[in-house]
Formats: sequence, C-alpha cells, structure tokens
Amino acid sequence: MSNELRVTVWNEGVHEKTNERVRKVYPKGMGWQIAQYLKKQEGIKSVRIAQLEDPDQGLSDKILNTTDVMTWWGHVAHDRVSDENVERVRRRVVEGGMGLVVLHSGHMSKPFRALMGTTCMLKWREWQGIGEKERLWVVNPAHPIVDGVPERIELERSEMYGEHFDIPQPDEQVFISWFQGGEVFRSGCCWHRGLGKVFYFSPGHETIPIYRNELILKVIANGVRWASPSRVLGGIKRDHFVPPLEPIG
Amino acid sequence: MSNELRVTVWNEGVHEKTNERVRKVYPKGMGWQIAQYLKKQEGIKSVRIAQLEDPDQGLSDKILNTTDVMTWWGHVAHDRVSDENVERVRRRVVEGGMGLVVLHSGHMSKPFRALMGTTCMLKWREWQGIGEKERLWVVNPAHPIVDGVPERIELERSEMYGEHFDIPQPDEQVFISWFQGGEVFRSGCCWHRGLGKVFYFSPGHETIPIYRNELILKVIANGVRWASPSRVLGGIKRDHFVPPLEPIG
Amino acid sequence: MSNELRVTVWNEGVHEKTNERVRKVYPKGMGWQIAQYLKKQEGIKSVRIAQLEDPDQGLSDKILNTTDVMTWWGHVAHDRVSDENVERVRRRVVEGGMGLVVLHSGHMSKPFRALMGTTCMLKWREWQGIGEKERLWVVNPAHPIVDGVPERIELERSEMYGEHFDIPQPDEQVFISWFQGGEVFRSGCCWHRGLGKVFYFSPGHETIPIYRNELILKVIANGVRWASPSRVLGGIKRDHFVPPLEPIG
Amino acid sequence: MSNELRVTVWNEGVHEKTNERVRKVYPKGMGWQIAQYLKKQEGIKSVRIAQLEDPDQGLSDKILNTTDVMTWWGHVAHDRVSDENVERVRRRVVEGGMGLVVLHSGHMSKPFRALMGTTCMLKWREWQGIGEKERLWVVNPAHPIVDGVPERIELERSEMYGEHFDIPQPDEQVFISWFQGGEVFRSGCCWHRGLGKVFYFSPGHETIPIYRNELILKVIANGVRWASPSRVLGGIKRDHFVPPLEPIG
Repeated sequence: MSNELRVTVWNEGVHEKTNERVRKVYPKGMGWQIAQYLKKQEGIKSVRIAQLEDPDQGLSDKILNTTDVMTWWGHVAHDRVSDENVERVRRRVVEGGMGLVVLHSGHMSKPFRALMGTTCMLKWREWQGIGEKERLWVVNPAHPIVDGVPERIELERSEMYGEHFDIPQPDEQVFISWFQGGEVFRSGCCWHRGLGKVFYFSPGHETIPIYRNELILKVIANGVRWASPSRVLGGIKRDHFVPPLEPIG
Repeated sequence: MSNELRVTVWNEGVHEKTNERVRKVYPKGMGWQIAQYLKKQEGIKSVRIAQLEDPDQGLSDKILNTTDVMTWWGHVAHDRVSDENVERVRRRVVEGGMGLVVLHSGHMSKPFRALMGTTCMLKWREWQGIGEKERLWVVNPAHPIVDGVPERIELERSEMYGEHFDIPQPDEQVFISWFQGGEVFRSGCCWHRGLGKVFYFSPGHETIPIYRNELILKVIANGVRWASPSRVLGGIKRDHFVPPLEPIG
Repeated sequence: MSNELRVTVWNEGVHEKTNERVRKVYPKGMGWQIAQYLKKQEGIKSVRIAQLEDPDQGLSDKILNTTDVMTWWGHVAHDRVSDENVERVRRRVVEGGMGLVVLHSGHMSKPFRALMGTTCMLKWREWQGIGEKERLWVVNPAHPIVDGVPERIELERSEMYGEHFDIPQPDEQVFISWFQGGEVFRSGCCWHRGLGKVFYFSPGHETIPIYRNELILKVIANGVRWASPSRVLGGIKRDHFVPPLEPIG
Repeated sequence: MSNELRVTVWNEGVHEKTNERVRKVYPKGMGWQIAQYLKKQEGIKSVRIAQLEDPDQGLSDKILNTTDVMTWWGHVAHDRVSDENVERVRRRVVEGGMGLVVLHSGHMSKPFRALMGTTCMLKWREWQGIGEKERLWVVNPAHPIVDGVPERIELERSEMYGEHFDIPQPDEQVFISWFQGGEVFRSGCCWHRGLGKVFYFSPGHETIPIYRNELILKVIANGVRWASPSRVLGGIKRDHFVPPLEPIG
C-alpha cells in the first residue's frame, strides 16, 4: 500500500474567503498549497481537497473509505463540523487505520480532541500579526518523519504556541520548538490509536506563509507517509463471544 | 491530600434489581461490597455510593467536585448515562485531576471510551455461567498498585476477557491475565489524561463473587490511592494569549 | 535503504557441535535455518552468518559497519562474548542505527542487557525436554511486525518463558504469550535506543524445531524489516560546545 | 517507607578542591549544599554525603544497602569511578529498588549511561563562564515532581544543555527548558528500570550558584521522594525453572 497512498487534504476553507490578508498569502487556499506539494511526493498516488462547505462537510463515508491519510486544517469553524462527522473520522482512524495529520490550529479540532481525550489547550501569541522567530529542534533523529531534515528548522516568523500543551504524552516525540519570546512547545508529536496513527505538527498559520516553506512541507509529507496504514486491515474481529481453545474442567 | 481521599463508588445498579442471581451474590449491590471494603482502608476519608437512578445519575457537579477518586461499574445500561454527564466526568478527570478506577465491563462505559479515544472492545466468554480459571500475573512488581500483592492472583472462576483489547498502549502495564480456555488479557492498565489518572482493572462480574476476594479488593484500594490527585490543582491557566517574556526584535 | 538490507545472523554455534539432539534438529545450525529463510525475503539484499568461533567472534568493525540488521541467538556461551565486542555491538546500534533482533535465550545476552539496563531475567520451564503448548496473541494488530500474521500463532511444543520478565516497559508491545502450564509472557517487544531499534522475540529453542515454523520465520523477517535503519545516518553531531544562535545580553 | 527515606548525596568532590572559583561558590562542596536542604524536608529521615575519595569510592554495599535514594553529581572524574562500583549502583537500582536522582553533568556518569543504554550525549555552552538565561517549563503539571512549583522556573544564569540529548524517550517528561541562546532541552526526565526509578534533572553547575535556588532545591527534594522505593521489595524471585501450575498433556 505504501506506494499508493490516497491523501485527502481537509481544509476548513473559511478564512480564505472572509479575510483579505489570508487570501493574499494563499490565493487558492492553504489546502491547495499543501495539496500541490504532496502530489509530487514519492509514495503518494492521489491527493484531493475536501472542505467544510462540501457536501457532507467533505467527510462522507465515500471519501473516508477511499482515504489512507487525511491532513486536517481548521481554525475558526471547529464547532461547525458535525458530531456525526467527527465520530466518522475518529472511527475511520481507530477501526479503519486511516492516518491523521493534524496541522497548527487543528489542535482544537473535534476529531483530534476525540482521539486524545484531553483538552488539547495551549498558550499562544500572534506577535503584532507578524509573529516571531521559531526554531524546531529534532529530538528523535532516527524517526522517519525527520528523514532529510536538518537538526533544526528555522522560521523567521511564526505564531507562538506554548506549554503547557494538554495532550497525553506522545508515543514518539519528534520535534520541540523554541520561541523568541521565551516559550517552548512540543511541536511534532506521534500517537497510535487503534489501527491508526496520528501526527500533530504545529507550524502553520493563515497569514504567515509557512506552508510555502520547503522543510515544513517535507515534514508534512514525511508525516503522511509515517501515518499511512501499515497493511490492509480486513480481518480484525472484536467484541464477540468466543468458544474456549482449551478444555475447561 | 493523600490522607483524606474522598471516594465515590459509581454503580450502575440495574442488574441487582432485575436479576435474581445477581441479587443473591450481592444482596446490597456490587457498589456496596466495594464501598464497604474501601471505607476501612488507609488514606481514605470517605466513601459514598452513586447510582444511575440517583438525581443527575449520581454525576452532578456537586458530587464530582467533592470526589477525589471515582470507581466505575456499569454493564447493561452504558447508553443510559447522558452525554452531558459523560462530558462532566471526563472534564473532572482531565481538568480537575479526579482519579478514575474503571472496573470489569466498565471498559465499554462512555467515560472510559471518551478518555481513551479507541473502541475499547475485546473478546469475552462466560463459560456456562460460572466462568473459568483466571490467573493475574504482575508484570510491574515495583508499581504501587501491587503493594502487598503476590506475584500472581488466582481466581477459580472468572469471565474471560481476551485480546485484542483495543486501547492505547498503557503508560504503565501492571497485570496480564492468563485464562484456562487459552487467552491472555492486559487486565491491569494505567494511563495519565490531563491532570487525572485512569486505572482499568478487569476482574469482576455480576454473578461470580469476585468483589468478595480479598486480593482483588486490595488491588482496587491500591488503584484508588494510585489514582488520587497528586496535589491541589488550582492554578493551571491555559488557552490564553500571553505576552512575550523576552524582547522580540 | 529499505530495499537493500544487509543482514547478519549471529549464531552462538556451540550447541550444534556439542549436543547430538540439537544437531539432529538443525544439522546445519540454527543460524543457517534462519538465514535460509531471510535470504528469500523482500527488501533483504544479503544475509551472512557470523559465529562465536569466527575471527573477532564474528563481531569485527568490518562486519558491523556493513550490517543494517543483526539477529542474535546465544544460549550457553553468553559470557564468552568479550566485553569489547559487546560494546562494539551496542554502539553500532545506538550510534550507527543498526537494528538488533534478539531471539529466545538471547534475552540474557550481553548486548541485549547492555541496551536495556535491567537484569532481563524471567521464569522458564522446559517440560520433559519436549515443551508445552504456547499461543502468541497479537496485542497490536496495526504493527508492521504482524503484517500477514493471524490474530494468534499456535506452537504445539515450546519452552515456557514466564513473567516477571525484567525489562523496561516496551515502547511497542506486539505479542503476549499464553502457556499451557499457566503462565503469560511478553513475547514480542520493541524498543528504540539512540539511532537504532531493538526487537525481542521469544519463541525458539535448540531442540524443538520452532525455526522451521513458517509464521515464526515470517515474524522474524518482519522484525528485521521493522528494525532497519530509517535513513542514512551520517550527520548526527553531538557532545560539543556550540556557539549561541541568538544574542546573549 | 515514605516517611523514613535514607538519602545518600554522592558528590564527586574534585572540583571543589582544585578550582578556586568553585570553592568560592560552594565552600563546603555542592554535595553539602544539597544535603543541607534535603535534611529539612518532609519524608526524609537521614542524609549523608559520599564522595569519590571515600573508602570504596563511597559506594560500598554497606552504603548502598542502607540507601533508599541516591543523588549523583559528577563532572571531571566520571572515569575514575570503578566499573565494579558502577555495576553495584546499577544493580542496587534495578534489583534493590534504590532511586537515583542524576544531576547536571551526571548525564555522562557511568551509572546513568549503564541504566539508559545510550550515549547520553548532548550539546552544551558555558557562555563566558557566567552562563545565560534558562527557563524550565513544566510540561506535566500533575506530576508529583512539580508539587509546589510554578508553571516555569527562571534561572538568570545557567549553562546551556541542548538537544539532541541521546536518551531513551522518558517514561514521564516533566520539564523542557528554553535557553536564551536559542536551544531547547528535555531538562526533567523520569524512567523506570527494574524495581528502581531514575530522575534526571539538568540545572546545576559548579560555578553558577544554582544549588542555592530554592525552586531548584524543591524539585530535587520532590525528585527524591518520587524516586523512593514504592514498597519493601523482598520477594522477587527470578530466573528459575518453575513447575507447571496446570496439567500439561
């Protein structure tokens, strides 16, 4: 399956329409920017964009069942994603093995919070609308997500996300960020949930053009590959009465 | 706080009323059996029983806010616990630091599943209504939950719970069970979620008198103490804009 | 690199010479049995056998530096492996990213114990020289090591290994075994150490022909692929004084 | 046992004799400074100082067997600690349940490296002999080690320790540090090894008076209490042939 990944870039798509500044930075939307990059990457067979305004909010069974990995960007409209669709996404990860790559403000999205169980809250600062320096340090240099990535990634302008970040301790901690204003943040985190994998990656913003940064895009592509289902998962049977394998006297 | 634990034993309380056999084994209810034991344990100040039939399903803010650790037993009426109350329990754990000790069929309770994010499904077998031999092996002999417990606990009759058990890998694996009919099960599991701790312990059944077993009760009491909040937690501030600590040029 | 894995099967090779029964089961040695299988597997470029009696005990820098993954089988001669060679293996894993797949009685080998830090002791029973039934349950069905493996593997005859097994809790628990005589065992365990990965897999014995079992061999091959270095690892710089990236006032 | 902790502060004690500046900051030695604080803390019964120059390097069986928790500070003389003594310390942790609190440059001490299995290397910078600003952020606010500690600890002057820090991912990550010069560091880390616990805490230096900082001392005391043995550990039997509990047909 690893050479034939079908990726869906879920993009809230609200900011781009309502905010002139966002439109300037991402005229075709953030989702388009990410999708364009992913399309050219090894191991990825297809990339489509799904949005909140689409039928079924872009989260129909038809879409989910043909998605191996979904990336998720949302910000101002988390609450508008219906509980039914959130549950569908969560189940597709846990029971279907779909990978989920959650980006930036997606930390407060309903599917991510449903998978974590915690508040997923954090500190934040958007310095004068232009941000501040962020430096992402690799703390797990053997992890596939940092393949081809140097020991740190520099972002001249970024929104600060700071600790305490209320998440279950990651199964695999990949990046920790330094911010100019004095904070740290666990900016690259991996978890396993049921048959699926979840990667949270914090850089990204609607008016700072972080999704044009080649290294950030490379990490997202690595994250997509890491989160891909490890195999065709058809045969898991659960929650059933089973007869004994051995005699019970 | 550790000498003054306020425990609430949440007990579904449906079986005991509708099933003659259950009433015979636990004439005053399973919750009563557990509560009686806990009342006499060191470090525990008070124990009360809350049930599904109580006002607010026994899960009002008044009760939750005066509970340090809650034990949870449910089986046939998981769905009758309201989503609002489930969310209240989840938040009291994650944001308030309340410990949650989930017993037996509570693996399918809504609060446990909301905290785990996975299906929490498993295999099961209730052999001829009387069960089969179970042997709980300690795999973490230094863990406080096995204080005073020998290297294994023998249960002559128990309901089988078997793998695959769909949970996030426990932060601390304490017990693994062997079953006569040929299965294994991760029967004692610890997780941290936000400010709170969760202990799942699988032995227990409505017609096999497992909650009369001294060692099983001892583990539950140890679990209650382990899950207790580590400190008074008043000052966590989250999800707010913060000014920089250092100059941003 | 994943299509070009160079595997070294390290085989103590003492039993096969001194014990008539072992010779009967594995006339060419256990290492040969495993190597024959691995040679035919996808992603593996080359397989060689190294033994205790070889020059440098089969653990020269020349061998290690051209090995991506090493499997390790030892039993009666752990102490004869020199401390210098043990340190060389440990460093090749931690600093060079070599995968290590430790088999059966290799749990007491010096390289495994040096990587774990614990005693790695366990319970054992070799029932009447012929063993007893073992059943390996998959507890992590999405793990690449169980690709193509059913929910359990049955071994009619196996040596019992039982808990408590004194290891750091595995980063990824893959298998837990059930034994006919009443024990359980964490039989498939994964850890990350520095740039390298370690997989311990307990089935295997010198007179019970377990390394002829197709599913056991499949797990070993999967383990070899899982443990392979995730990338070319040339650029890790450590333990050095570094100048500041930001001005220090 | 928790009210009767017997602590041994192991202090290399070389710097204090050979370096005038160190003597000025810690006239009675760093160990003395730490010991004085610990003596007054709740739950601690006795504190003694052991040094490299003592008989048996302060690591005799007599000392170890009467120590519940040992703190370790070493820097210039790691290699002078004999391998035999290192092994004695490691075994006292793993088999005897002794807690080990490793401070600052102790990350390169032999006992810590033997327990971790990795290189334990890191980046470092001692800016103009006076250091730079460090800010320790709490990333696990419910952990007993941060009891009474605010959400961050500020150090005006500290030696920089930076990632990548080559350790197995901590079982419990407690602190992550921010440094003025641009780095981050996992500065408070917990692991379980056999029956014992290990806490690594990086702040501390021989010429910057960090061990006079009340909050740093409080964390060390909390670490000592966290690392204390969870119970009297007399009965662990391992590595022996055991008869079957169940009939083997």
